Amino acid sequence: MSHNTFGHLFRVTTWGESHGPALGCVVDGCPPGLRFSEDGLQHWMDKRKPGQSRFVTQRREDDKVKVLSGVMREESGELVTTGTPVSMLIENTDQRSKDYSEIARRYRPGHADYTYDVKYGIRDYRGGGRSSARETAARVAAGGLARLVVPNMIVRAALVQIGDRKIDRGNWDWSQVDANPFFCPDAKMVPVWEDYLDTIRKAGSSVGAVIEVVAENVPAGLGAPIYAKLDQDICANLMSINAVKGVEIGNGFGAAEISGEENADEMRIGPDGKPVFLSNNAGGILGGISTGQPIVARFAVKPTSSILNDRRSVDADGNEVDVRTKGRHDPCVGIRAVPIGEAMVACALADHYLRDRGQTGRLD
Amino acid sequence: MSHNTFGHLFRVTTWGESHGPALGCVVDGCPPGLRFSEDGLQHWMDKRKPGQSRFVTQRREDDKVKVLSGVMREESGELVTTGTPVSMLIENTDQRSKDYSEIARRYRPGHADYTYDVKYGIRDYRGGGRSSARETAARVAAGGLARLVVPNMIVRAALVQIGDRKIDRGNWDWSQVDANPFFCPDAKMVPVWEDYLDTIRKAGSSVGAVIEVVAENVPAGLGAPIYAKLDQDICANLMSINAVKGVEIGNGFGAAEISGEENADEMRIGPDGKPVFLSNNAGGILGGISTGQPIVARFAVKPTSSILNDRRSVDADGNEVDVRTKGRHDPCVGIRAVPIGEAMVACALADHYLRDRGQTGRLD
Amino acid sequence: MSHNTFGHLFRVTTWGESHGPALGCVVDGCPPGLRFSEDGLQHWMDKRKPGQSRFVTQRREDDKVKVLSGVMREESGELVTTGTPVSMLIENTDQRSKDYSEIARRYRPGHADYTYDVKYGIRDYRGGGRSSARETAARVAAGGLARLVVPNMIVRAALVQIGDRKIDRGNWDWSQVDANPFFCPDAKMVPVWEDYLDTIRKAGSSVGAVIEVVAENVPAGLGAPIYAKLDQDICANLMSINAVKGVEIGNGFGAAEISGEENADEMRIGPDGKPVFLSNNAGGILGGISTGQPIVARFAVKPTSSILNDRRSVDADGNEVDVRTKGRHDPCVGIRAVPIGEAMVACALADHYLRDRGQTGRLD
Amino acid sequence: MSHNTFGHLFRVTTWGESHGPALGCVVDGCPPGLRFSEDGLQHWMDKRKPGQSRFVTQRREDDKVKVLSGVMREESGELVTTGTPVSMLIENTDQRSKDYSEIARRYRPGHADYTYDVKYGIRDYRGGGRSSARETAARVAAGGLARLVVPNMIVRAALVQIGDRKIDRGNWDWSQVDANPFFCPDAKMVPVWEDYLDTIRKAGSSVGAVIEVVAENVPAGLGAPIYAKLDQDICANLMSINAVKGVEIGNGFGAAEISGEENADEMRIGPDGKPVFLSNNAGGILGGISTGQPIVARFAVKPTSSILNDRRSVDADGNEVDVRTKGRHDPCVGIRAVPIGEAMVACALADHYLRDRGQTGRLD
Repeated sequence: MSHNTFGHLFRVTTWGESHGPALGCVVDGCPPGLRFSEDGLQHWMDKRKPGQSRFVTQRREDDKVKVLSGVMREESGELVTTGTPVSMLIENTDQRSKDYSEIARRYRPGHADYTYDVKYGIRDYRGGGRSSARETAARVAAGGLARLVVPNMIVRAALVQIGDRKIDRGNWDWSQVDANPFFCPDAKMVPVWEDYLDTIRKAGSSVGAVIEVVAENVPAGLGAPIYAKLDQDICANLMSINAVKGVEIGNGFGAAEISGEENADEMRIGPDGKPVFLSNNAGGILGGISTGQPIVARFAVKPTSSILNDRRSVDADGNEVDVRTKGRHDPCVGIRAVPIGEAMVACALADHYLRDRGQTGRLD
Repeated sequence: MSHNTFGHLFRVTTWGESHGPALGCVVDGCPPGLRFSEDGLQHWMDKRKPGQSRFVTQRREDDKVKVLSGVMREESGELVTTGTPVSMLIENTDQRSKDYSEIARRYRPGHADYTYDVKYGIRDYRGGGRSSARETAARVAAGGLARLVVPNMIVRAALVQIGDRKIDRGNWDWSQVDANPFFCPDAKMVPVWEDYLDTIRKAGSSVGAVIEVVAENVPAGLGAPIYAKLDQDICANLMSINAVKGVEIGNGFGAAEISGEENADEMRIGPDGKPVFLSNNAGGILGGISTGQPIVARFAVKPTSSILNDRRSVDADGNEVDVRTKGRHDPCVGIRAVPIGEAMVACALADHYLRDRGQTGRLD
Repeated sequence: MSHNTFGHLFRVTTWGESHGPALGCVVDGCPPGLRFSEDGLQHWMDKRKPGQSRFVTQRREDDKVKVLSGVMREESGELVTTGTPVSMLIENTDQRSKDYSEIARRYRPGHADYTYDVKYGIRDYRGGGRSSARETAARVAAGGLARLVVPNMIVRAALVQIGDRKIDRGNWDWSQVDANPFFCPDAKMVPVWEDYLDTIRKAGSSVGAVIEVVAENVPAGLGAPIYAKLDQDICANLMSINAVKGVEIGNGFGAAEISGEENADEMRIGPDGKPVFLSNNAGGILGGISTGQPIVARFAVKPTSSILNDRRSVDADGNEVDVRTKGRHDPCVGIRAVPIGEAMVACALADHYLRDRGQTGRLD
Repeated sequence: MSHNTFGHLFRVTTWGESHGPALGCVVDGCPPGLRFSEDGLQHWMDKRKPGQSRFVTQRREDDKVKVLSGVMREESGELVTTGTPVSMLIENTDQRSKDYSEIARRYRPGHADYTYDVKYGIRDYRGGGRSSARETAARVAAGGLARLVVPNMIVRAALVQIGDRKIDRGNWDWSQVDANPFFCPDAKMVPVWEDYLDTIRKAGSSVGAVIEVVAENVPAGLGAPIYAKLDQDICANLMSINAVKGVEIGNGFGAAEISGEENADEMRIGPDGKPVFLSNNAGGILGGISTGQPIVARFAVKPTSSILNDRRSVDADGNEVDVRTKGRHDPCVGIRAVPIGEAMVACALADHYLRDRGQTGRLD
């Protein structure tokens, strides 16, 4: 039982606070022989990096990953994993601790301030300490390795809803996702969200969002019945992301509303003689085990509780106070949750892949 | 990594197939000194027991629990736990294996038949084998012990939606829940669901449902940040129930649609000088840690895929076939998921309670 | 963290007390497709069974194993595993609880009576309850399955020392082991031990022993560096056996006394062009990873503390008392530890085998 | 299953290679409110630090620990833990990678070179990579925190045997241990070992050793029956140290040689009315649970296989070669194992302490 570790064979332990000197992770169980470059890893980090548009926090961090162990450098300059734990470190540079001094003893509504104090009796209040979404940088680094574990696997995500504005799924175009600041697959929705979020941002308010993650080229047979269902582990990974309050697989809550005929995916024999599914309401998972279809998961992110307006609260001394978040502001934290969701799904799939194939594939 | 175990300090391992001689569980980590009677345990079993109304499967099982270890009997006749593992066994009696022979090599759409075969290359097809919801009887037995771990904790659940028929939350009355065959808290909805499900049942079809679980008297401070968030562990437990495709805490997916001002629960000082929350959008959990408010979780159950109508599928030999489930039929498996959901939430809370308080409270 | 479970991918959970209705285990992670018969399993049980000579306890138990789940019966009558958890149950029949009533509140020196009471505040005193060596019957059953996991693996053990009487290793003959009541590989030592143990037995005393376990046909590459060293996991498994106070691999404590030149096993290229070791001081493990040589482990069993002579002790009420064990008596519990040691080593090796090869070998 | 993590509630994950930029650990589960200084931590590091006498490796490392997370600095300058993971980093400075280029493809007898290659197909050969004893620096840092978890606990160790030269236990004087380069508690043995090791060192050879660890002020009741026995977890922790081939608790292998009367510790009522033991053959553990007496464990370290003399071996290309270790040389690695053994025992005890008391003691 490790509160800061997830996964079993592809096992990620993260550490670090928002305003400490650094944060990072140890990826234990990474198979030997995976090749990657720091630039390749950085590609994923940059997707999550703060300060990239006016719709996300203006904190400036390079989020450069240092790989401290578990690899050897090849003549090509690439790194190759050796099977030993990969330690990765990301320095904190733009910390501005003074911004937070006012809330050292005040509980921001909707934040973990109160519950950390109840649980631990001590709390690193600077920037939210350990409960800061900054912790997720380490997850994205780990996800960069996880993506390499399952051959040819592609894991990508998109924002499908901000507040009550949902995309038109008929307009879904993956090539749009990286072409706008929202990871939005529906080009027509982009200006709508821009206007909407500008209003939210100027009001010092915030709003929630829904993200959809799709994993392709996941072999059939991953997962396990009963208490290590693939959907269970994917959902647990997504629920561990800050501010996530709901998760679903395939039709999800929508499955409750339809009949068994509508929901159960029928099968036929495909042109290659192999079974094919005629639909994917199951989101690629039956009985906790992957079917070979794309894995589809969605998760809901609540509006950040750091808003620039007064809220009623209490302090650690038992006084009633009004709290208004200062410091930097994220009108929709759901946006930056897109690469984090990808990383967490990739990690779950890498983990289950290794459970079936073993940690070192070299023995015959 | 144990695929048939859940929990860390309150640790449940289940075993058994639908049509084997028995099924059961081992509860490891049950603290010493818990007192209970077999009758008390049976109360929870009876809530889940099949055959109690025309809306659930007609399989007849007594579901009597035998407690084989981990307890001593007191003079009062009650059992008291000793801290060693509690093994509980439930015999299968009404098995009718012949009902299933036709589908030994056919994959029922929406079932785990195909994925089990892909994964294991062998499958106990009788009644779904290990993937049968019958496995959940063992969870309810374990939940009966879990309820005793956290002092005064009350965990109860209700069905809030069948198909697209949702209850009116204004009519919520816990006393109604055990007074109708649906665990419905809204008396006015009961006749609506009766008519609706009769239609479904007679059509040989099925429909999904949504269940809400509420846990009261959960002390503040349970849970852990990051990868053992209380909401994460509750959701993982619920996602492990057969046919569950979505889970949410507090406002859940609804939180995505509202603003930070609307969603974050404000605080004041209560009459006793202690902090109180003015609302519970968080579902009793902030930053992965309980606030002391009721824990509120919901989960969506898909319509059972065992329907009495022909569906297109394939068999293990690569033939296209039509499959129609014979055997007994559950028009809405969501109904019997109510006591299972309670059990899984109780287990998650017992587990986290022990992580904070330790497994044996006797040392000073 | 499960106190009654061991192993990670081949995962064994045991339950049961000496004088409860039954004891057993759940083996989770057993790969699908293993074939075995109840008779084959019983062969190992019978090696451990009590009452087989005057040198072990006279309790009479059939120790018949019932396999309750995780298997299907083939037409040949053999059982084949399906990949789901295998639950095995052994009934207790010859319990004689009254023998133990006198020591309900008295702490037998050298037993776990005092520490269980300190820890749990309650104790099943009948026959030692959970701390009875009877629990090990479940391990032997699990070991019977573990033996099937690694192809061609042979795990066998022998008693090499009783008290200070050690065998002559030059006389080692495996074929002798099952030909005497001591599992002794040195035929010349058998009469010596008979006389010695008769004296011990008649004096109501007891004596310790050392057991050596050898596993052959273990492929090179099993194990893991640092905290899951193969020697570490083997030793942990052996130390978990009741009354074991020391464990060693290869030269063990003897390695402390010799030079690096003497201890390090040199290598050459064998006739088949593959590396061969010229000695096996390492006991088949280097850096925590198997070399392909036989795995050699030894463990020391203390003399049982159940002796028929008065010993000074205290009771739960704070009185000084004299305690003399009544009930049945094992002059050398080390004898019956031989099949238990085999089982625990087999389980460790099966577990590590699966970590490398994956839990389901069917996917390509 | 994490190959580079140990412990359950006090959970240590280490990372790093001998010749990478750094190594370190993440301690997860450290309770909040522990106070320590970097100097206090460094005290333990310095005991293990290389280059402190002519009897250990001449590598020069400062082994300064940087604490990167999980703490806040108090006005006094002390650090206080917050309950979040403590990441500690130690830079490698004196690496001399060129020393090792010759053995990149040659297998040093007695080393993990061959087995790493078999398992992973790739190996960081520089200084032994991950299998270097340099990894243990991270353990000593973790042990520095573990010592603070159990109130008033003292864990200390001494070297009791080098080669076949054993100390006279009658001369045991803890105050001598830090007064000589061997951590020897017997002042009379020091000159004997000096002469002996000088001979070994000059011959380019090496020799093994035995270390005894004693933990005092360990409360009764720690540990767990069956598969998390306190002795089992201590032994597993000690067996995970490089080059350890045997472990024992209390009388250990010696218990095999004596009678039940001699071995079982009798009890009486002490002057304060509480039970006292009249001897400690059990090494402070009965039935896997601490008795309140000092915990006594011993472990055997094999002679290092890095010797300056030619040994027969093979290379990765299938050639027979002679291998002679160059680089720096440790004639008796057992010496530096003394502080490592202390750290590993402290970690095991901290872990079990938290299992009983819970991870956060603040809730009432």
